[in-house]
Amino acid sequence: MITKNTVKAIQSLKQTKYRKELGLFVVEGRKSVEELLQSSLETTAVYATERFQQEHGFHDERLETVSEMQMEQMSSFDTPPGILAVVRIPKQDNIQHEGMMLALDGIANPGNMGTIIRTAEWFGVKNIVCSEDCVEIWNPKVIQATMGSLFRMNVVSTDLEGFLKEAKDKGKAVYGALLEGENIFKKDKWEDGIIVIGSESHGIRSNILPLITHPITIPRAKNSITESLNASMATGIILASWASKLS
Amino acid sequence: MITKNTVKAIQSLKQTKYRKELGLFVVEGRKSVEELLQSSLETTAVYATERFQQEHGFHDERLETVSEMQMEQMSSFDTPPGILAVVRIPKQDNIQHEGMMLALDGIANPGNMGTIIRTAEWFGVKNIVCSEDCVEIWNPKVIQATMGSLFRMNVVSTDLEGFLKEAKDKGKAVYGALLEGENIFKKDKWEDGIIVIGSESHGIRSNILPLITHPITIPRAKNSITESLNASMATGIILASWASKLS
Repeated sequence: MITKNTVKAIQSLKQTKYRKELGLFVVEGRKSVEELLQSSLETTAVYATERFQQEHGFHDERLETVSEMQMEQMSSFDTPPGILAVVRIPKQDNIQHEGMMLALDGIANPGNMGTIIRTAEWFGVKNIVCSEDCVEIWNPKVIQATMGSLFRMNVVSTDLEGFLKEAKDKGKAVYGALLEGENIFKKDKWEDGIIVIGSESHGIRSNILPLITHPITIPRAKNSITESLNASMATGIILASWASKLS
Repeated sequence: MITKNTVKAIQSLKQTKYRKELGLFVVEGRKSVEELLQSSLETTAVYATERFQQEHGFHDERLETVSEMQMEQMSSFDTPPGILAVVRIPKQDNIQHEGMMLALDGIANPGNMGTIIRTAEWFGVKNIVCSEDCVEIWNPKVIQATMGSLFRMNVVSTDLEGFLKEAKDKGKAVYGALLEGENIFKKDKWEDGIIVIGSESHGIRSNILPLITHPITIPRAKNSITESLNASMATGIILASWASKLS
């Protein structure tokens, strides 16, 4: 039986502050929980309502049954999916330079962050570096948007400027999506390196701009007057362009 | 002075039912309202708070000042942007076959719908056909995600199966994103035609599948186990691939 205090503790994990303090985060929904249980992350508890278990025939030895009301209290969703896991926040891995890597500069929107992680995994990216003011990846909305990809991606939060300075000094290619850059559709070759993505509101910020060694651009149709693409969309299109030259 | 009844009427436009009954929809936020006023749509009223006008120096002869509380009542957002326009829902244009066109099969998520419209405009698409069960495009979340592109796109809701049957009979290329199709990265040529996009939960539905003349696929990295891409992301990547062969 789950206690009132445990329900309260899990409820508190909706806030960044308590996730940091307790070193725990929450995963909800069948698909995400299934992906979680197959990952290397340490799951400390799994809760599901009676109804969820009947509807989905979901079995796991760690599963504890909770009431609809308890689930509602713990869930971050208006319509709780009925299954919820508590997970230990893993230690940050070291940054590994392997293949192409993403660097995110101030991505604050959780949906964008999640979609970027999901799409990056699709195209085979293994490492993502985030500036310290990016949205926290253990945010429920980020987790939902990654559809499980988060559990298989190495995401590191760091001083982005320092990281890129070092990479540039070592001769790494630092790509950055800018208004005036090389047309990605005409690019024949990409070096292994780092693709920097800025936020929709601020773009790549002024402290990062001088560290871009390869400015790139997604060309817009001649008659189009749209000013920009969504940040995760731009990331996906650039990654697709890169991946298309890999094979 | 805005009347109580007008505030109530605008408030009702948060619901599809009243948008249909009154033939009106609401646009909020500085950028979207600016794009609206430059478009050919018929704006019937523009309201802004005192604070918004001071902060943004926004001028328009049609502008009426409303109180913060009135704005909160009318706004669909938790944090109202402070400016709001009421617009007449335009008559559906005829479907025009011009260049490449999108056909959306059951896209229910407003964020996805909006991002698809925005990205389609970036790449020069002028016409989008939606199945009748797609999310209504005058939904505030769709409008927000299009960032003004909606006002420049011809979006038509229709019997998608009938439309695609006719197109196929006329010899049009009907592309569809499927798991087993031609690798879009290896495609050298695209014909002008229609790209069909299904929803994330159902894909392209069984009544539409036989109408696809050109199955296409976004290839996934060999070691990736992600099952799918977000529907708007898949659309953007396909459109980018098509656009890259245009020039």
